[in-house]
Amino acid sequence: MVLPVAGGCVIGVDLGGTKLLAGAVDAGLDVHHRAYRLAPASDLRAVIDAVASVVEEARAAVGGEVRAVGFGIPSLFDHERAVAVSTVHLPIRDVPFRDVMAERLGLPVFVDNDANVAMLAEHRFGAARGAKHALLLTLGTGIGGAIVVDGALVRGALGSAGELGHMVIDLDGPRCQGNCPSRGCLEALASGTALGRDGLQAAHEHPASGLGRALAEGRVMTGALVTELAHDGDPTAGAVMRRVGEYLGIGIASLVNIFNPSVVVVGGGVIAAGELLLEPAREVLAQRALSPSREAARIVPARFGAESGMLGAAILARDGAEEAERAGG
Amino acid sequence: MVLPVAGGCVIGVDLGGTKLLAGAVDAGLDVHHRAYRLAPASDLRAVIDAVASVVEEARAAVGGEVRAVGFGIPSLFDHERAVAVSTVHLPIRDVPFRDVMAERLGLPVFVDNDANVAMLAEHRFGAARGAKHALLLTLGTGIGGAIVVDGALVRGALGSAGELGHMVIDLDGPRCQGNCPSRGCLEALASGTALGRDGLQAAHEHPASGLGRALAEGRVMTGALVTELAHDGDPTAGAVMRRVGEYLGIGIASLVNIFNPSVVVVGGGVIAAGELLLEPAREVLAQRALSPSREAARIVPARFGAESGMLGAAILARDGAEEAERAGG
Repeated sequence: MVLPVAGGCVIGVDLGGTKLLAGAVDAGLDVHHRAYRLAPASDLRAVIDAVASVVEEARAAVGGEVRAVGFGIPSLFDHERAVAVSTVHLPIRDVPFRDVMAERLGLPVFVDNDANVAMLAEHRFGAARGAKHALLLTLGTGIGGAIVVDGALVRGALGSAGELGHMVIDLDGPRCQGNCPSRGCLEALASGTALGRDGLQAAHEHPASGLGRALAEGRVMTGALVTELAHDGDPTAGAVMRRVGEYLGIGIASLVNIFNPSVVVVGGGVIAAGELLLEPAREVLAQRALSPSREAARIVPARFGAESGMLGAAILARDGAEEAERAGG
Repeated sequence: MVLPVAGGCVIGVDLGGTKLLAGAVDAGLDVHHRAYRLAPASDLRAVIDAVASVVEEARAAVGGEVRAVGFGIPSLFDHERAVAVSTVHLPIRDVPFRDVMAERLGLPVFVDNDANVAMLAEHRFGAARGAKHALLLTLGTGIGGAIVVDGALVRGALGSAGELGHMVIDLDGPRCQGNCPSRGCLEALASGTALGRDGLQAAHEHPASGLGRALAEGRVMTGALVTELAHDGDPTAGAVMRRVGEYLGIGIASLVNIFNPSVVVVGGGVIAAGELLLEPAREVLAQRALSPSREAARIVPARFGAESGMLGAAILARDGAEEAERAGG
């Protein structure tokens, strides 16, 4: 028998370009159950089914008592029409995602961009708490971004502001991903995808290295594998990681000159690399940004690590449910 | 005899890295007198003297009746201490600029960053009028920037936000200028200084071109000369201008992804190039920025051209004088 959770649970879902994470979260931000799936990249129905299944798993685990579901999606979300207007990594473009999921789940559903909900968690309870001016970068399959200026999220004219990963740092650099038509974007150089790509190249160039041996053993070269080998002390993996951290630092230095934030939060799956990534980024910030902005900005890992998005989606759901209940009574 | 101006004049001063422009401006933004000087780059006393002389000239031209003086300075200005905290192109660092000038001139003095005052003019009366989300780039000796989000200027944690010229677009590009320690910044590739430098190189490579002949005639290669020859139809100067416009477009594409503005205003002396600069920038924006932000953003010249800063400084002075008069009784 499952005991009811005091204050009720909400479910937060982080819909990434590669992975799906749902958490049943109580009012104190404790996570009572986590459910994972791979995100099907090719087909809308498969995405909807995977999302429904991960939510149902989390809901069942807390005894079915769930107030609302929040989603962070890697898309520009049109709040008025409740439609995912454009999306880089998932086939949900032009889908009325909120209404489709609300009908499927029979629960109130709230949706925002994945980086915006991650910022919601980090700004309200995490590494950016109390900061009037803060930036967040989520490093995963791609790079998402969120901006807080004077305490409020920056959304822009159509709600599509915050694409910090699509800032060009190398004008003739590698082609960017998904529906980004540019080259040499921060995402093309410092995402988990870029880390895996650079790791594969280094593995070919240094077959005797840890990376090279992993490749020879048939392991799939991902950002996670490069991170694991760098943590284990493989100098080739460490050098790949350092270079990616330096690219990240170049992007952050530009953002620090633009926004003069007091904190830059780095989250997403790639932050598993921790200081291996952030230390070179801090060195580049000190070397390349303008004073006094460079001294004012701390680069810190997300307090909630790769779970900021899921927790922020849960906070969005709780806020939304409470507002609806107030409005309704 | 000089007739008094209805409503009184204020004097706006744009203190650029190369030039000083003062205007005696009435309540309807009409400019009754303009005074120019070269900005002495080496010595604080010479800067103060030049500023005082240009203000006195404008003041005398309108019969001495001046309510206040406003300055746009190419520096981070600490409003609480009224001190220029850091500056890229002028020797006024750590100077209590407001108080020094107020004592010297015997008039109320108001100071802000030069790009912020240019935005004040363009946002209230010019090309960004009515825009909730707008960016401004001033292309001159360097590149200044200003940001409006949700109708308000973005200043950042210490007031040093808005350095849009110090965004890296080419990570191994040419060294940046002044006290910027980076390379490949937008300013290093798309400022008037960069235009002159690239023009000089093209003149050496193409001695039979208009640029090459101008160089052989002993003319000093500046951004203004490249612009003049490009307007006259010299294909070599035109190619240099186009390349600079493309660099500008790469920077704007990144900024459009970050801010999702409805308008990007380009001002400063280099905007004399007009469409020769903006057309390639628009092409690059369409090619490299994300949808729907790229469709939402218009790139337009400053309504007040190279005078946005001077007029904005005058608006700052008038706002400040009116507020002080209200507060005083």
